[in-house]
Amino acid sequence: MPHISLKSDEPGINGLFRYRPETARPLADLAEVLLRGDSTLSRGERELIATYVSSLNECRFCSNSHAAFAAAQLPGGIELVDQVRSDPDGAPISAKLRALLVVAAAVQRGGPHVTTADVDAARAVGATEMEIHDTVLIAAAFCMFNRYVDGLGTVAPADRSAYAAMAEQIVDQGYSAVVPESQPAG
Amino acid sequence: MPHISLKSDEPGINGLFRYRPETARPLADLAEVLLRGDSTLSRGERELIATYVSSLNECRFCSNSHAAFAAAQLPGGIELVDQVRSDPDGAPISAKLRALLVVAAAVQRGGPHVTTADVDAARAVGATEMEIHDTVLIAAAFCMFNRYVDGLGTVAPADRSAYAAMAEQIVDQGYSAVVPESQPAG
Repeated sequence: MPHISLKSDEPGINGLFRYRPETARPLADLAEVLLRGDSTLSRGERELIATYVSSLNECRFCSNSHAAFAAAQLPGGIELVDQVRSDPDGAPISAKLRALLVVAAAVQRGGPHVTTADVDAARAVGATEMEIHDTVLIAAAFCMFNRYVDGLGTVAPADRSAYAAMAEQIVDQGYSAVVPESQPAG
Repeated sequence: MPHISLKSDEPGINGLFRYRPETARPLADLAEVLLRGDSTLSRGERELIATYVSSLNECRFCSNSHAAFAAAQLPGGIELVDQVRSDPDGAPISAKLRALLVVAAAVQRGGPHVTTADVDAARAVGATEMEIHDTVLIAAAFCMFNRYVDGLGTVAPADRSAYAAMAEQIVDQGYSAVVPESQPAG
């Protein structure tokens, strides 16, 4: 049960977006730019970074929902996503994405954990300055989203089909479209 | 030295906002709503929560800058802010703000660390549902901002006067006004 009365039974961040549309707007816009905006990283790759960080933070709602969003946008589907979550070193992904996941994991532990060596290693296998920037910000942003969702004790559906339905909407319409009309909860 | 070439020598998040205006916009809008928008918590109180979390994350740039923003908007000034950073239990703040800082510290450790007892304790000394919500989101957001600023190795001025100058601008114009015109860094 959520720690505060959200006045709806929508799970995870959906209920929080409904409760406080004024903060939902910039949060959704941030997700849209980072995960779906112009980038040399594919949408699937960026969702995979979000999923990986959410798994490290043990946030069930974010981890399962972004796993579904990643799976819907990667040729390897949910099998690849599950492999990355359980064994990123052994998963069949590019050397660049693997190096970016190392950077993301360091960010998850805390900003000062990112080393020059981590960044140089990513650069050595082809990561651009902007890709490194966006990886750090995606990882940092999910350290926020995960804490927001679990810090307020929101509910996470147990059934994977619930997340697959969310994936259809996100892949089709994007994040900014899912913010409710602004009606302050007061 | 920053981990990537930011093409400017602006410190902390200022250099990151300059580098990537597309993500700066929603980030600044989020800070504006959370720290300066309509709320029953004063702007000074909200900056104090941001400062406290940034100190727990040992983010020098965010901790010093938001300390300056809090000091400029609280009757107790920088002495009170420094007291809260070093000894929140002993600082002369309201019981409600003290209880909200406990919630914020739990969020900093991780979303699941927030307990029903923490939230009930805040409610018992007068915190509203929305104040609890905003405290959790402010704490979560600074777990992002701190990781973004330090994960990219940005520079933090050593001199407190630099932060006081930033405070004048923020108090006067707000966060959304400090985002540079959108010119993708490419």
